[in-house]
Order: sequence, then structure tokens, then C-alpha cells
Amino acid sequence: MTTEAKPGSRERLLEAAARLTYRDGVGIGVDALCKAARVSKRSMYQLFESKDELLAASLEEGAAAFVAGLLPGTDDDRTPRERILYVFDQLESQANAPDFLGCRYLTAQIELKDNNHPASRVAHQIKGNLTSFFRAEAERGGAGDPDLLARQLILVFDGASARVGIKADTPAGLIAPTVATLLEAAGMR
Amino acid sequence: MTTEAKPGSRERLLEAAARLTYRDGVGIGVDALCKAARVSKRSMYQLFESKDELLAASLEEGAAAFVAGLLPGTDDDRTPRERILYVFDQLESQANAPDFLGCRYLTAQIELKDNNHPASRVAHQIKGNLTSFFRAEAERGGAGDPDLLARQLILVFDGASARVGIKADTPAGLIAPTVATLLEAAGMR
Repeated sequence: MTTEAKPGSRERLLEAAARLTYRDGVGIGVDALCKAARVSKRSMYQLFESKDELLAASLEEGAAAFVAGLLPGTDDDRTPRERILYVFDQLESQANAPDFLGCRYLTAQIELKDNNHPASRVAHQIKGNLTSFFRAEAERGGAGDPDLLARQLILVFDGASARVGIKADTPAGLIAPTVATLLEAAGMR
Repeated sequence: MTTEAKPGSRERLLEAAARLTYRDGVGIGVDALCKAARVSKRSMYQLFESKDELLAASLEEGAAAFVAGLLPGTDDDRTPRERILYVFDQLESQANAPDFLGCRYLTAQIELKDNNHPASRVAHQIKGNLTSFFRAEAERGGAGDPDLLARQLILVFDGASARVGIKADTPAGLIAPTVATLLEAAGMR
């Protein structure tokens, strides 16, 4: 007799995977994930092909919140420059939280060390969308080299996330002036 | 009867720890490290109190090569600006290697997620020395705000290392123009 996984098991597994991999790293074991989610291993493997697939699904599941927490609405009247600055203001307040350990998509990719891992592919895509946002605003705002500016902005996003995440620096007085300098050099005043 | 660890065991363990943690992450097991170093676990624990201490020692052991690979000699006649650019030229060539997975001190700290881990403390110190180098050159070169410039330069160092390490970007046309913009804004022409 095959029993089906109980309602809510999938959601609890996704939540546990997101929370525990962020806190402890992608090496977290299946036992710990199932225990935290109060789901049997049998149920987990009914719902997800593997731990790798669970991890990928949990990163994917977090994408909407990631975007909502960083990007301005599409219907506001901010200028492209202000829309870019908005993202970094949001990063700064998120990075000030005591449990901030860096951008989860960056840390997952660093830890996995494998671009073909399903979770790396998801993370790569989600961060690529953020770079595309920067690229589009840079172009709308008349940046001299929108490609370069977008690469610089995502570099600052990841560099600041990483350094604040390891407690090597704080966001204050670092992120905003660096972004302002790059925008200015690109001709986006 | 206590047998002592054979000569060379310590060096082989340090080399294996450096190589395997960089390639596979700090979660690599003691068994794998001992096997790669051709050292018994008993010998390993004679030489190092714990895997954590072995990891810390391997990062410490790599510090001289890290510095030698990045920093200009103390006796050259480069200007402060040129000395800073030299570091990023070196980073760019290192980051172009196919097995580059980012700065080992940054990735170790991200993976360990614990500032009090002995290896995190070593990594923090070694990267702090690089920031101090930037700070000293910024001051010598007349930067308007040497503290800010040093923080920006190490942010670019870590951001570029991380993004190139996960294959999200390439160093070419990114690192050099970004550093040049920051130096210029700081008044270091």
C-alpha cells in the first residue's frame, strides 16, 4: 500500500530547506531536513526526486519574495537612477539584520561548486534576472555603457552581500557611495 | 607504544586540506583528507587537534603564497595607484584559470558561517591584511577618503572573485574599469 505524503508536507520541506541551507549550508543532511519539516524520508522522496531537487525547488520558491523584497513596483514614478538606488537601499536594510549571511543565491552557488547542479541553475537564473533589471534601468537612464554598469552593479550587490554576510564589513557608508560613484561615472546623475 | 607521525605527514595533510576544501568545500570529511594525504587518522590527530585546526592551519600556510601572488614587491618604484592596479591585474589572471572557484578565504568564511571558527579567524585576518594594504596605498596616493576607498577595493576584490568563481561573469572588461572608476572618484589619478 502506498501512502501519499500529507497535505502541507511539500510546503514544510521547502521552508525547512530554505531556512536550514541558508543557516547551515547546502551540505545539510536529508535527515535534518525531514526532521525539521516533520516529514518522513519516504514522503520526501515521494515529493522530490532527490535532495538536490528539493534544494532547487526551495530556491525557486523563494524567487518571488526575493524580487518583491528588492525591486520597486513597475508602476511607480521613480527615475531609472532612483529605481537602481532603491534596490541597494533594500539590500542595505536586509543586510543589517543580525541573521544575514549574504545573498542566498550567491552562497548556494559558492557552496555547490557545480554550475550544472539543479539548484545552481535556479540561482544563476534568478540572479540573472536582477542583472537584467539593472541593465534595463541603465539603458533607460542613458548610461554610457549599460552592459558594463549592470555588471558593476551586480558585482557590488554580490560583493557587499558576501562581505557583510561574513561580518567583514557593514553596509553603512559603503554600498550607497559605491553605487553613486558608478552611476555617476556611467553618466546617470 | 606510541608511533609518531612520519615526516612529511603534516605537509601532505596541509596540502590535501587546502586542495580539497577549495575544490569540494569545508564539509570535506576527515577520511577523505587522510586518504588524499596518505596519512592515518591516528597520525592526523597526533598532528592536529581537530579537522577545524587542520583547516585553519592550511589557510594560514597559504597566506604567504596568497600575498606573493597578489602584492607588488616593497622595493619597486610603482606609484600607489599602480600598486593597487597591480593587485587587480594579478587577480584577473588568477581568476582566468579554469579551476578558479573564488578567493579561498572568502569561500571558506561563507561556507563556515561562523566567525569564531579557527579557520574563519585566520581567513578574516589574511583578508584584513589585504584591506590594510589598500588603505595604506590609498593614503600614500592622496585618496580623499582612504578608508572608503580601501573598503570599496576589497568589495570589488571579493565581488569579482565570487562572481567569476561561480562563472556568473568573467574578469575581462569588468575589474579594471571598475577599479579605475573608484580610484578616479577618490582623486587617485
